[in-house]
Amino acid sequence: MIENIELNKSATKHLYLQLYSQLKELILKKKLTADTKLPPIRKFARKLNVNNVTIVNAYNLLEEEELVYKKVGSGTFVAPLTVQHKEEQDNYLDEKVYIDEDTKFTDNQEEIINFATGAPTPNLFPIAPFKRLVNKVLDRDGGYAFGYQKSQGYLALRKTISSYIANYNIEANINEIQIISGAQQGIDILAKTFLDYGDTVFVERPTYPGAISVFNSRKANIVEIPITPEGIDITVLEEKLAKHNPKFLYLMPNFQNPTGYSYSKKNKERIIELANKYDLLIIEDDCLSNLNYTCDNNQSLKSLDQNERIIYIKSFSKVFMPGLRLAFLLIPERHFEDILISKYISDIFTDGLVQRVLDLYFKEEMWEKQITTLKETYSQRYLTMCKALEKFLPQEVKFITPQGGLNFWLELPTKLTDAKLQQEALQANINLAPGSVFYAASPPKNKIRLSIAAVSQKEIKQGIKRLGEIIKDQLEDSDYRLDDSFLPLV
Amino acid sequence: MIENIELNKSATKHLYLQLYSQLKELILKKKLTADTKLPPIRKFARKLNVNNVTIVNAYNLLEEEELVYKKVGSGTFVAPLTVQHKEEQDNYLDEKVYIDEDTKFTDNQEEIINFATGAPTPNLFPIAPFKRLVNKVLDRDGGYAFGYQKSQGYLALRKTISSYIANYNIEANINEIQIISGAQQGIDILAKTFLDYGDTVFVERPTYPGAISVFNSRKANIVEIPITPEGIDITVLEEKLAKHNPKFLYLMPNFQNPTGYSYSKKNKERIIELANKYDLLIIEDDCLSNLNYTCDNNQSLKSLDQNERIIYIKSFSKVFMPGLRLAFLLIPERHFEDILISKYISDIFTDGLVQRVLDLYFKEEMWEKQITTLKETYSQRYLTMCKALEKFLPQEVKFITPQGGLNFWLELPTKLTDAKLQQEALQANINLAPGSVFYAASPPKNKIRLSIAAVSQKEIKQGIKRLGEIIKDQLEDSDYRLDDSFLPLV
Repeated sequence: MIENIELNKSATKHLYLQLYSQLKELILKKKLTADTKLPPIRKFARKLNVNNVTIVNAYNLLEEEELVYKKVGSGTFVAPLTVQHKEEQDNYLDEKVYIDEDTKFTDNQEEIINFATGAPTPNLFPIAPFKRLVNKVLDRDGGYAFGYQKSQGYLALRKTISSYIANYNIEANINEIQIISGAQQGIDILAKTFLDYGDTVFVERPTYPGAISVFNSRKANIVEIPITPEGIDITVLEEKLAKHNPKFLYLMPNFQNPTGYSYSKKNKERIIELANKYDLLIIEDDCLSNLNYTCDNNQSLKSLDQNERIIYIKSFSKVFMPGLRLAFLLIPERHFEDILISKYISDIFTDGLVQRVLDLYFKEEMWEKQITTLKETYSQRYLTMCKALEKFLPQEVKFITPQGGLNFWLELPTKLTDAKLQQEALQANINLAPGSVFYAASPPKNKIRLSIAAVSQKEIKQGIKRLGEIIKDQLEDSDYRLDDSFLPLV
Repeated sequence: MIENIELNKSATKHLYLQLYSQLKELILKKKLTADTKLPPIRKFARKLNVNNVTIVNAYNLLEEEELVYKKVGSGTFVAPLTVQHKEEQDNYLDEKVYIDEDTKFTDNQEEIINFATGAPTPNLFPIAPFKRLVNKVLDRDGGYAFGYQKSQGYLALRKTISSYIANYNIEANINEIQIISGAQQGIDILAKTFLDYGDTVFVERPTYPGAISVFNSRKANIVEIPITPEGIDITVLEEKLAKHNPKFLYLMPNFQNPTGYSYSKKNKERIIELANKYDLLIIEDDCLSNLNYTCDNNQSLKSLDQNERIIYIKSFSKVFMPGLRLAFLLIPERHFEDILISKYISDIFTDGLVQRVLDLYFKEEMWEKQITTLKETYSQRYLTMCKALEKFLPQEVKFITPQGGLNFWLELPTKLTDAKLQQEALQANINLAPGSVFYAASPPKNKIRLSIAAVSQKEIKQGIKRLGEIIKDQLEDSDYRLDDSFLPLV
């Protein structure tokens, strides 16, 4: 309730925004009902020990969203919830996942602990430098930043990227770099370029569902090759290559999504050999290779490629800001024109302002600093997660500790299902990703993915502890049901 | 040369950026050769009557692009042009189209007069309000502006759009609004949703080439229906409907691209009747209907639609800022989920920051002001264009004056070709869009499109005068060649 509202003055989030969020939550959850009078501005400001303007701003934001109304001379009142607010309520619950860790609500209402999302929390985003650089770009380039851009991307950024990737032993000149509006668009553009009705594409099993959907949308024939903790299963790959002639292979060799597995160096080299032998095109999707905590086995296939067999997709979402749709492709010259056309028909070009900001971000050497900061944060979460999984999960749950990235891939005893576990976990305010969604066909039902992108260390401990209890309960429960339901009906 | 450099202090463009542009041009055009020493900072500042820091900033920008190098203690020198600069040179020539009208170079080098592009010039963009609103959003929302967004779009913006379109007699609630990353993405998403291999789609003949490319990419069967100055040819449309069952019709009923034609009210009503009779789905692409100068016949099909037969695409590019990839779809409820999935696989969601800025832009009632400003500017260009075409073009060139929008569609005498004319025009520093690109099959060769989006009134007069002379020359010339080449070889 209003009495419990507390603002955190050392948080990066503005006080009025903190207040707005907390009041909004109380209203949407109907803890403040229609026509309740909100505290008078000066009184509330004194109580919270803030400026009057903090209260005014918060009330204004609420009014803008029609959550409160003002009566001249008598104050601010909670508005009746409309049908539109219902949708807002759902929206709001989604967004709560992204509340800063240090500005949690204080009304004892439990937050969802979200192991389902791979998107980082906004408190990790470099907001202040971004703001400074946006202003710098606007002052410097004015209207240029908003004009039509080249479909291939802003030249200065392509130059910058060319130097940046040299640090990762990848050589690509500015002509080989195609700027795109996020990695998902990259997959879509490559599918447009290479896949026709009935064409075959090889993917890891399991793999990223956004890729499966794109390939299905092109009516492609998807062949799944199992991934092991050492990399893609080379034996199966060779068997399939004897039968199929894939247009390309879609692979995530480092900290794969969803498994977290990384290909061994030997496995990577073997794939390059096979690519040369069978004249294969490989799409390497790399969004997490920067997040290596325990070892340096995060070499890209692209850096091993001598024969222009790899198209490399690099996203900035996970490590910069997911809201900015920005990524790049490295493309062998022979595919250059076809891919440019696919980019053109997808959205003509990528936002020029954001390209300019990212360019300066690199030029001011803030990128490496940001990676360092993120690696520190994520490696702490990673260690906490490893310990919590060991400590709180029953031993029937199997998993292989990834060497980096954000994802943990768990195998449940076969009598449990991902759907049932997710359902029960949600009851306890925990979300997780059911494994079934990561398969193109015949998914197993006993896998789940847990991500550390949007959970604090405290949440990891609490969440995994609670999840362990739920799994134990379900194991006991389903043992009972198994006995019961599997008895022959006599 | 450097002696000719002049800075325009009353221009909106920063002085250092003006200086940078002019020096860059001199270097790329090799009027300043490698190792030439640039004027010392204080001396140059005195000569141009500007602050030292203006010179420093300009030199820094040039150095950043490796166009100059500095020797400690001796000054700044022109760098040798590298292979990379070659590409930059091309890029630079492209970008020159977008230089502010009031900051033209002053070294007597002629600018390209660009009738080819439909993208407005940056001097028309609301840069200052945009900057203010970006900062407002960043202060207000912090990390929220950069987190993963809903694929359907930012809720507050959808609410705002719902109110906005009510002014145009269109009713759509927030659930029917899908935010997209520009109109081109809208076409791509709808093609993904509705078109499979071999499906039929009807388009106007001629039509927007970006749509043709998308439909070809889905391997659709494209059927072209001629457009007349009164609207789409209803007779042909009915004939084709007897033979084909199109998945949808892709139409631009107001100020069509490329012709500039608008459907008559009767024509629009007839199409709605046919849609009901034949159970048709129509995609209405509306990017220019706000730019009506001479009459109010710019009613949308969507506003006439009682039976959810229209999907409406509205872009903000032409009238807000093309660099921001932002548009919306209005979708009948039954297609809602399929389109959301197509959006998801295209780029997951649209940039959250830009959505928030546009929302505030509407909320502060700046949108209507911007439309008013643009209409004033464009209607002056439009009138100048009408007069110039009448005055300077030979009467063999036919055209119908559009009622609004940005495009003029010209028919040349059949013995002239668009390709040849474009080639000759480019020699005279004029660019135009050859008509052939606006057809899915069997293009006529004697049409051209002239756009007033990126040309000043002065440029219109100069450009059309010069174009008229070129056409007259070609007419005389080709008469001659016709005689010559068509003589039987005996």
